[in-house]
Amino acid sequence: MPEHPNRSEFARLDFQRRARRGAPETVYCASKTNEQLIEIYRRFHEAGEDAFGTRATPEQAEAVRAVFSEVQYDSVSRVLLLRAPSRKASEGAGCVAVCCGGTSDLPVAEEAAQTAEFLGSRMTRFYDIGIACLDRVLGCIDEIRQANAVIAVAGMEGALPSVIAGMVAVPVIAVPTSVGYGASFQGVAPLLTMLNSCAEGIAVVNIDNGYGAGYLANQINQLAISN
Amino acid sequence: MPEHPNRSEFARLDFQRRARRGAPETVYCASKTNEQLIEIYRRFHEAGEDAFGTRATPEQAEAVRAVFSEVQYDSVSRVLLLRAPSRKASEGAGCVAVCCGGTSDLPVAEEAAQTAEFLGSRMTRFYDIGIACLDRVLGCIDEIRQANAVIAVAGMEGALPSVIAGMVAVPVIAVPTSVGYGASFQGVAPLLTMLNSCAEGIAVVNIDNGYGAGYLANQINQLAISN
Amino acid sequence: MPEHPNRSEFARLDFQRRARRGAPETVYCASKTNEQLIEIYRRFHEAGEDAFGTRATPEQAEAVRAVFSEVQYDSVSRVLLLRAPSRKASEGAGCVAVCCGGTSDLPVAEEAAQTAEFLGSRMTRFYDIGIACLDRVLGCIDEIRQANAVIAVAGMEGALPSVIAGMVAVPVIAVPTSVGYGASFQGVAPLLTMLNSCAEGIAVVNIDNGYGAGYLANQINQLAISN
Amino acid sequence: MPEHPNRSEFARLDFQRRARRGAPETVYCASKTNEQLIEIYRRFHEAGEDAFGTRATPEQAEAVRAVFSEVQYDSVSRVLLLRAPSRKASEGAGCVAVCCGGTSDLPVAEEAAQTAEFLGSRMTRFYDIGIACLDRVLGCIDEIRQANAVIAVAGMEGALPSVIAGMVAVPVIAVPTSVGYGASFQGVAPLLTMLNSCAEGIAVVNIDNGYGAGYLANQINQLAISN
Amino acid sequence: MPEHPNRSEFARLDFQRRARRGAPETVYCASKTNEQLIEIYRRFHEAGEDAFGTRATPEQAEAVRAVFSEVQYDSVSRVLLLRAPSRKASEGAGCVAVCCGGTSDLPVAEEAAQTAEFLGSRMTRFYDIGIACLDRVLGCIDEIRQANAVIAVAGMEGALPSVIAGMVAVPVIAVPTSVGYGASFQGVAPLLTMLNSCAEGIAVVNIDNGYGAGYLANQINQLAISN
Amino acid sequence: MPEHPNRSEFARLDFQRRARRGAPETVYCASKTNEQLIEIYRRFHEAGEDAFGTRATPEQAEAVRAVFSEVQYDSVSRVLLLRAPSRKASEGAGCVAVCCGGTSDLPVAEEAAQTAEFLGSRMTRFYDIGIACLDRVLGCIDEIRQANAVIAVAGMEGALPSVIAGMVAVPVIAVPTSVGYGASFQGVAPLLTMLNSCAEGIAVVNIDNGYGAGYLANQINQLAISN
Amino acid sequence: MPEHPNRSEFARLDFQRRARRGAPETVYCASKTNEQLIEIYRRFHEAGEDAFGTRATPEQAEAVRAVFSEVQYDSVSRVLLLRAPSRKASEGAGCVAVCCGGTSDLPVAEEAAQTAEFLGSRMTRFYDIGIACLDRVLGCIDEIRQANAVIAVAGMEGALPSVIAGMVAVPVIAVPTSVGYGASFQGVAPLLTMLNSCAEGIAVVNIDNGYGAGYLANQINQLAISN
Amino acid sequence: MPEHPNRSEFARLDFQRRARRGAPETVYCASKTNEQLIEIYRRFHEAGEDAFGTRATPEQAEAVRAVFSEVQYDSVSRVLLLRAPSRKASEGAGCVAVCCGGTSDLPVAEEAAQTAEFLGSRMTRFYDIGIACLDRVLGCIDEIRQANAVIAVAGMEGALPSVIAGMVAVPVIAVPTSVGYGASFQGVAPLLTMLNSCAEGIAVVNIDNGYGAGYLANQINQLAISN
Repeated sequence: MPEHPNRSEFARLDFQRRARRGAPETVYCASKTNEQLIEIYRRFHEAGEDAFGTRATPEQAEAVRAVFSEVQYDSVSRVLLLRAPSRKASEGAGCVAVCCGGTSDLPVAEEAAQTAEFLGSRMTRFYDIGIACLDRVLGCIDEIRQANAVIAVAGMEGALPSVIAGMVAVPVIAVPTSVGYGASFQGVAPLLTMLNSCAEGIAVVNIDNGYGAGYLANQINQLAISN
Repeated sequence: MPEHPNRSEFARLDFQRRARRGAPETVYCASKTNEQLIEIYRRFHEAGEDAFGTRATPEQAEAVRAVFSEVQYDSVSRVLLLRAPSRKASEGAGCVAVCCGGTSDLPVAEEAAQTAEFLGSRMTRFYDIGIACLDRVLGCIDEIRQANAVIAVAGMEGALPSVIAGMVAVPVIAVPTSVGYGASFQGVAPLLTMLNSCAEGIAVVNIDNGYGAGYLANQINQLAISN
Repeated sequence: MPEHPNRSEFARLDFQRRARRGAPETVYCASKTNEQLIEIYRRFHEAGEDAFGTRATPEQAEAVRAVFSEVQYDSVSRVLLLRAPSRKASEGAGCVAVCCGGTSDLPVAEEAAQTAEFLGSRMTRFYDIGIACLDRVLGCIDEIRQANAVIAVAGMEGALPSVIAGMVAVPVIAVPTSVGYGASFQGVAPLLTMLNSCAEGIAVVNIDNGYGAGYLANQINQLAISN
Repeated sequence: MPEHPNRSEFARLDFQRRARRGAPETVYCASKTNEQLIEIYRRFHEAGEDAFGTRATPEQAEAVRAVFSEVQYDSVSRVLLLRAPSRKASEGAGCVAVCCGGTSDLPVAEEAAQTAEFLGSRMTRFYDIGIACLDRVLGCIDEIRQANAVIAVAGMEGALPSVIAGMVAVPVIAVPTSVGYGASFQGVAPLLTMLNSCAEGIAVVNIDNGYGAGYLANQINQLAISN
Repeated sequence: MPEHPNRSEFARLDFQRRARRGAPETVYCASKTNEQLIEIYRRFHEAGEDAFGTRATPEQAEAVRAVFSEVQYDSVSRVLLLRAPSRKASEGAGCVAVCCGGTSDLPVAEEAAQTAEFLGSRMTRFYDIGIACLDRVLGCIDEIRQANAVIAVAGMEGALPSVIAGMVAVPVIAVPTSVGYGASFQGVAPLLTMLNSCAEGIAVVNIDNGYGAGYLANQINQLAISN
Repeated sequence: MPEHPNRSEFARLDFQRRARRGAPETVYCASKTNEQLIEIYRRFHEAGEDAFGTRATPEQAEAVRAVFSEVQYDSVSRVLLLRAPSRKASEGAGCVAVCCGGTSDLPVAEEAAQTAEFLGSRMTRFYDIGIACLDRVLGCIDEIRQANAVIAVAGMEGALPSVIAGMVAVPVIAVPTSVGYGASFQGVAPLLTMLNSCAEGIAVVNIDNGYGAGYLANQINQLAISN
Repeated sequence: MPEHPNRSEFARLDFQRRARRGAPETVYCASKTNEQLIEIYRRFHEAGEDAFGTRATPEQAEAVRAVFSEVQYDSVSRVLLLRAPSRKASEGAGCVAVCCGGTSDLPVAEEAAQTAEFLGSRMTRFYDIGIACLDRVLGCIDEIRQANAVIAVAGMEGALPSVIAGMVAVPVIAVPTSVGYGASFQGVAPLLTMLNSCAEGIAVVNIDNGYGAGYLANQINQLAISN
Repeated sequence: MPEHPNRSEFARLDFQRRARRGAPETVYCASKTNEQLIEIYRRFHEAGEDAFGTRATPEQAEAVRAVFSEVQYDSVSRVLLLRAPSRKASEGAGCVAVCCGGTSDLPVAEEAAQTAEFLGSRMTRFYDIGIACLDRVLGCIDEIRQANAVIAVAGMEGALPSVIAGMVAVPVIAVPTSVGYGASFQGVAPLLTMLNSCAEGIAVVNIDNGYGAGYLANQINQLAISN
């Protein structure tokens, strides 16, 4: 079967996004072939733009590293970052707090944290502060209150964002995770909890969407410090 | 169309239930006609058994009162009670705590409370202690800890049982309510929250099932005090 | 049936919320009796706090007005506001844009707008700019870009927030509405659309939750202007 | 256990379909054994009919190729085609446009494209024009308008068909894909988006059903050019 | 509460739609107030454009008729039509067949039929040909085959489109209806049936969306006759 | 708007059904207008066929009775029967048992019973034998075993068919009802219970589908006695 | 950790079932360990009872065959049968027809067929007669009408049982299968189709439950011939 | 990518839980890495606290055993227990009955049993007493009545708890399992059955949540014996 010529144009990169939206396009690695991924990283590299990828598998990371040895990979967050030589990493300004309920939520929490860091926010982390033991979250709340935005990651019943939002004055970005079993329905239970919170000031993102939470938190943080 | 003779046997009352299960059969009024309801209350009355009905509408209460003037009706809990003359109300022993998140949860909380009272438990009530303001529940927790069982009623995100269970040593009976809108899906959201709680010791009942919660709480309370 | 004495404590108002969270407690009128509502407004009034209620029916508004003639009611947004004499309305600072897809989304959009206004934000409104005619939203986009936060309200397929978010640099708060029929499932369709948006920077709230969107937008707006 | 004689008649091929419906029966390879597939391709071959199979795995393709070396397999679309010697490939007439939102939608888009091509349509392809960057779709729209039918393939929030339909005069066949995660629910989110579109002229097919979209687009295209 | 000035701009009509898409904007009456509806019909009238509304209640029809006595209302389809004096009704060309399973599907079938008629198609109607008695549909099939597009409306199990599509060569537009009870889930059952049809050439629209089906059928019919 | 001539053919009655299927077509009254219903009953009458309607409201019954004074209506089962003068009611042969869990299930149980009676079966009824008191069903089981088919109607958790099927040798037709609240989801809970029964020999019909159960039970009963 | 003594009593076999219900207990192999399965087959063997197992994997079959070399395994239906030496296979009486829509439904159809055969019914098979080509089912219908019960197996849209039931006078047992993709939701689509059929006389069983269908069909067939 | 220093604090253990809640924190092993698990068991060990883990895989058990050779692992319940040298196993007091429907429910039943045993309850086990053969459960009921609490574990239709609850006076903790197929929806069917039980005194926990059931049963048992 002959190759379809215009099928090779499988990706149209959006290098105007930094100008238009204040942050570059990033790469969702999850369902791409190694060949597609290498080609995309190459185009970012040639355009002098940072290539920040999420949901990269170790195998994808290896494949890209074989071409770009300087690529950085974090196996917890699954972030795959190839910095443009001409750009330097942001120092991180303002403050975003990332909280999570349990150890199993770490991959999502770290995806959020590293996304916001990449985009220029300074992060503080508060992990394993699930509400089965309220003292854990109460013990951190004064520190959490220092942030311009809070990311609260939780699976199972997902009540952490409600509890935190009731005690702070800034937006809480709630990230349901697929951690749990049975009637958690792969994250539907915490998603519904977060959407129905009786505490105001909660912004919900998709299940396991650490990236989206980090992006949103950084937007808010930049607004708070840019004025 | 001629009347079907055996259709008249529309209800087979279970007067052995008190002996077998420790509590009499009760009446779920919701979908019964006035005629059926009056007939059922009459049979309880004639058998010398208390008739305790739930989900009675004001109209049903009026219809039964027209026949049995001594019937008691509470419009909040929708409980309709016709005491057998030969039986006297229990004094109430032990202790069951009933908590709810918001004003709108009162009908369910009161159905639970009055059921457990009818069955012989002493109740303490803690209403409108939703977690959007944690101080409310923290301010009551020492009193709640005195109970042999806790009933926690909540709609919307339904996190109250988790928060309480993390702080007490006795079972918490969680009752999701259909209070809320949108993605609460008539009580599915709090139901899932309660089923997925990361705090142990939570017993879940059906949405809006105050009756079942009161029954279960009384069973536990009686076990605790009967020994 | 005798009145349960402690049942009268049906509401525990949280007058510390302004100090703790930066905004006063508000009143969700939807499932309250007229008596409960009047009592709650009275307590706010006596405490010198503004009583801002949402989802009030015209009947509830009448009942409260019979006691407090100065109460304000808007039949589109269903907001019922009783200002404390000692407090004056905020002038409104910064800027929040409220957009909606169609005429039927107005009640939710106005609930959002009036909430943020009450809390101190200046609003700009862009109504009936659904994406079936892209020129409508493209024609407004430069004005929308002036805001510190955008609220995008949409029913049916709910794609408006995605389209806007792709063109602005600030957070877009997405509010799905129950407008639609058939497979919109009372707002589930636009809710899922918004949660799965391929455009970053989208904060989702519950179906028809204009109040929550206005609250969140004001938080972001205040952060942007308070620095 | 003895072989059930009439079980061997596992497939009843419909060689009258070309006469009745204008297109031959095709083969859904997904859940067939290699033996069943080879037998089916053999019967098409012997009947002088093209065997066009969808959802073929590489292993299935190898098994069929071992018997019919001239069979063609495309690993992106998973189409497995054995042309009847007596039939020649259509040149392709009229015009159908195939658009997709992102790189991950390619397998479905190509299944659609190759189906319509097999059935006699000329295709134009517009890939990776997701709405997070509207300029991509706006930049192609004049070309897309040349087609007699448009196929719009999208996962995640699935808003691409709505955006395109609002700008063209011909039917848009919307194909939701299972690309996404969390609340995309394996394609339910884009399916609902497409069913609820506020833009008219959208024909929805099953999740990932590129084949059905290609078939329908070709029907419309043939009607447009056959008059 | 003072009137919000810019709220009065509740509807932005799209009078360029006829030029851009080949058909004018229409009016979804379902959730509009009488005042909004009259204002919208007035603007169409003043612009010399036909106002074609769907889902109008008899009350809405009365309200509009009080202003525009020449408005036409059909209580079965709930179509409310105010023709522009300068435009004359299309004669109807080509052919679209509208079929439905049972008497209860008539409102949806007629909404489809009258939409396509308004847009310029000639219709043939085949009602109450549900598949519980196959002879009914087999008896009509030769007539149905004359059409350039078929609309098949069905509730309950919704198999009519599959049965018809297997016997015709043109696209079948499948409209699930909310007719049924229990596990039909307000039209979800026929919707899923239609999406999963094993017969090719089926275009599905939303539950009860007769309007969308008529629009799409007319698009296809116009393509077939315009060449 | 002129009347569409062929719309008047809103119903195509199937008077061959008795010959083809062994039972006449019946009338589902639920969504028909009085005019449609009267017309349909008239046609049955004129064709010398019994008109057996289900889900008739008292208003519909009145409307038909105004024309055919001999029509019979049962307000529990909602059956509306107009016997053809030339046909006489079957005596009822064989035996079908109809059981139900609670008083609220009576309308569905009676729809089933009267359907099977109309079609020629002799019925025995066992009502209010829900499994909360097993003695009720155990006390009836020997009588139930006399039947050629058992219809078991239950709402709430719907376990009655499983319990009965484990004790009898003939098919049990399980009818879930929409009786219940909360997580019964209008009959989904008992439907799933019945589909997943660990007892063999259970035939499930739609929620509240007493008619279908009666039809099926009669088919089995006739097979058993006709040999 | 010491072995829990009473845990070894993992299975309580029900050898009275043949007397009570007319058919022996059978074995659901799906989630049992090889050790459990061998032990269960051994107990059947020692009790002189046939061991008929469903959903056996080839590995399980091998494990049992290593102990009982005479065990029979059919890899299509996944039936694993160890006949008791003292019992002989039934000759098969009466007639049950098994129909299925497509090749992929064979495993379920054969599970049904072999179950009914094991229980004493004579079977006729009609495979791959899906309704996309009605001639296939119409061509078989006279033969199908010979049966005392019909089993109709179908995935995807699952309309085959409706089509057949409309043409026969005996019960049709409808078996939805998980064959399909996307919005078939692993068999939910055909399940709903079958529950909502407008043709009477349809008995639905669980998704992929060929065993239950065969059991039920045999019950009906035995009733028909035993009289 | 440099290690994030504060990420190392991935778990905040709650050694006050025994004092606060009467039972120590336990370990949910399911989604933890071997390194995390070993570290957590080490901290329990060093704190002189028993480490009781659930859902441990054999691989996890091996990894922990390589460090702590005295760790106990049960492959049925998947419990991984490392006793603190200074603590001795409870003798087990009072009585909790654990019942399950079928062999496949054993892992969940044993998780429940071993949890309650670890926490200090004496257990009696009643396995494979599913309701398809009521004699099995009736034969055990007198023994079951000796317990202070009953755990009833069931998959498929999940009716066992209802049947037992109707015959005992103490709470029944109902555990739905994911055993089943098709419309059991991984345990949703028995979950709904249990939530909708018409028998009072049923406490529901999450699907497959043997641990939660054991914890709750022990709480009740301790209350019953501690008085």
